[in-house]
Order: sequence, then structure tokens, then C-alpha cells
Amino acid sequence: MLSTTPRTTLGRSKERGSTDRTDLYDVLDTGLICHLGVVVNGHPMVVPTGYGRIGDTLYLHGSTGAASLRAGGGGADVCVTVTHLDGIVLARSIFHHSVNYRSAMIYGTARLVTDPDERMAGLRALAEQLAPGQWDYVRRPSRKELAATAVLALSLEEASVKIRRGAPKDEEEDYDLPVWAGVLPLVTSWGTPEPDSVLPEGIEAPVHILHRE
Amino acid sequence: MLSTTPRTTLGRSKERGSTDRTDLYDVLDTGLICHLGVVVNGHPMVVPTGYGRIGDTLYLHGSTGAASLRAGGGGADVCVTVTHLDGIVLARSIFHHSVNYRSAMIYGTARLVTDPDERMAGLRALAEQLAPGQWDYVRRPSRKELAATAVLALSLEEASVKIRRGAPKDEEEDYDLPVWAGVLPLVTSWGTPEPDSVLPEGIEAPVHILHRE
Repeated sequence: MLSTTPRTTLGRSKERGSTDRTDLYDVLDTGLICHLGVVVNGHPMVVPTGYGRIGDTLYLHGSTGAASLRAGGGGADVCVTVTHLDGIVLARSIFHHSVNYRSAMIYGTARLVTDPDERMAGLRALAEQLAPGQWDYVRRPSRKELAATAVLALSLEEASVKIRRGAPKDEEEDYDLPVWAGVLPLVTSWGTPEPDSVLPEGIEAPVHILHRE
Repeated sequence: MLSTTPRTTLGRSKERGSTDRTDLYDVLDTGLICHLGVVVNGHPMVVPTGYGRIGDTLYLHGSTGAASLRAGGGGADVCVTVTHLDGIVLARSIFHHSVNYRSAMIYGTARLVTDPDERMAGLRALAEQLAPGQWDYVRRPSRKELAATAVLALSLEEASVKIRRGAPKDEEEDYDLPVWAGVLPLVTSWGTPEPDSVLPEGIEAPVHILHRE
């Protein structure tokens, strides 16, 4: 997958499935958003949304995406996918073009979190994933805001990771073609923080924003 | 969606739905991969994969993701989502943290493409989306490779676009808090091409790779 070439081709070259927890945590912890899949009236629906992880539990906003997530006190079947695109694999034939990527897929039943402590911990994980350092810096959720926010939990029990790295894998006879082949890396970085136009003078961006990794 | 704040909050600030074709084309044409949602045995499944667009048709690899896509000659219900993450919106309260993004969602029934000309055009669109310029540069698909590749078509008829831009929207009383607020932009760029280690000397990367936009 994630390729212009058939899945089996990737499987023969450098793609591998992984059940390694370290790989799973790494893909999740370095991501910013996931794509949440749900079934609504029999149809698939894929929504981009934030998430956070604590141990082997993923937390999601119940207010995002499908209302069906909240119906029935959670209990909705979901698939959460987090993908990092690392580069375009430029082969000597169109067929073997591909991408280098790291992707985690988690299947399970989303549980509506009702325990106040777990709700707060889940929200903190969500906030810290998107904007580390902000939980201790800005105003925390008020009682009213908490009441307006549904938090869902998803176990990482049923999860898989796929990773492709490295050079293209070409047909034997194509290596003689006079064409360039290799990888064009895709680089993601933070730009310069843009202050809100109504921000009072003298308030500088703190280190956790200015020098975010 | 795509936020640590409830959807309604985003709706009140700067998020907007769009049915503008220009917005839809722009989000699709500047993307590299989509997240493809299908229903497999009643469960949602979300797979990252490549895509290409010709007019109001999106082309996908039938070999990616769910086997169910190919079953029954296409005809599978899908949801395709393409998301660009542009920045993290750092508000004065956790509740109003959000992200700036552009996202397109396409619903419909995937059709298995059988016409040879449309198959080739679809594959070309797929390849050019991921690696523009390569179709005319490297070896094109052989008859055998073509036979091994299923191409699916999805109409853009049922599509929606969501875009959030700009500064955080905070609670009135929070604007006096002595905290920095604004947007931390996320920048995606191309790195230096990494040649395949077995590439013969003297073959330089062509301009469409070296100076890809």
C-alpha cells in the first residue's frame, strides 16, 4: 500500500509489517493527526483528527467526526491510521515507483471515557501530542468546557505497523537504463511562530513553542 | 474535526465547509497520498495510498488495501480523505487549541476500470501525482505489469472540503492572560535527492526531481 506499485511488490522489496511495540509507539508518538475510520449507516467515513497516547491506550475526541462514535456510549468500531510520509521512491520503471513511509493502523471498539480522572488524563495526552508544553502554560479546561468534551479510548491491542525505507527495487534488466533512481526525501519542519495580531507587546513565544522539536 | 476542540467551536471561528470545486481541486492536486476508507466484514479499515485526478474522477490502485475493493468488479463503497496540516493553533486555553488544515473528503462507489485507455490514463495520473515528470522519463508499464495492476475510479461528485486558517479564537476573558498565542506553521519541503547506491556514475538527477516544487 501507499504505492503506485502493487502491495506484493512492496512486500518483496523493503516493506515489512511489524508487531514491534517500539515501532508502534514511535509512529504514534511522532505523529500529529490520525485518520479515523468509522462506519456510518453502512458507509465508510474517514475523518482527520487529533489523538494522544497513554501506555497502550489511544485517546480521541468524541466530538470529532461521526456522531455515531458517541451513540450507545461509545462502543463504535473504529480504525485509526497514522501515517508519516518520508520520501518518494523514484525507480527505473513507473511500476516500481513507491513511497517511503511509516504507518500504524489500530482496530478496535472505541470506549466512551466517563471517569473524571481518565477524562482529564486523556485530554492532556491529546493536547500534549498536538502542542507539547501547552498544558502547563495556558488555561486548562473549565468545568463547562470539560462537560462539552467527549473523550474516547481505544486499546492498542489490535495494531499493526508498516514501514518502507531505502532505495527502489527495480527489475533486473532495468538497472542498465540511463535514468536517475533513488529517493526524494520529504522533510517536515516547524516554521517561525506567527503571533496572534491582538497579542499585547512584550509577550514572547516560550521555548517549547519557539524551539519545538 | 482535526482539533482538540469540539467541532462546533471550530465552526464558530475560522473553519468553513466548502463546495467550491477550485478548493477541492487545490487540496487534491497538492496532496501526495490519501487515506482510503472501506468497510470489510462490517468493520472500518483506513489505508494510506496514492491517487491521481483527471477532471472529476479520482484514480486509485485497486491492488492497495482491501481485497474487497476488487471483489464484485469494484462497486465498493469508499471514502477518500486527503489532508494537509498547515500549522498548530496555539490558543490561550487548552480548549481552543486547534490546527490549521485543508481537507477533502470524497464519498462514493469505486468502479473497476477496464477500458485499456482509461486504465493507462489513470495510472499516468497516479504516477504524476506522486512523481511528476517521471512518466516521460522512466520505463512505462509493460503489458505484464499492466495486467498485474487494478485501477479504480471514483467520481468527485460527492465531495466536501474543510479549511481552517488563521489565528486562534479565544474566550473573551482569556485575551488578558499573559500567554503567547498564535500559529506554529508546519512546513513541508523536499530534501536533497538520495541516489540509489548502485546508480552508475555520471547520471545526474533531472530537473523535475532536483527542483521539484
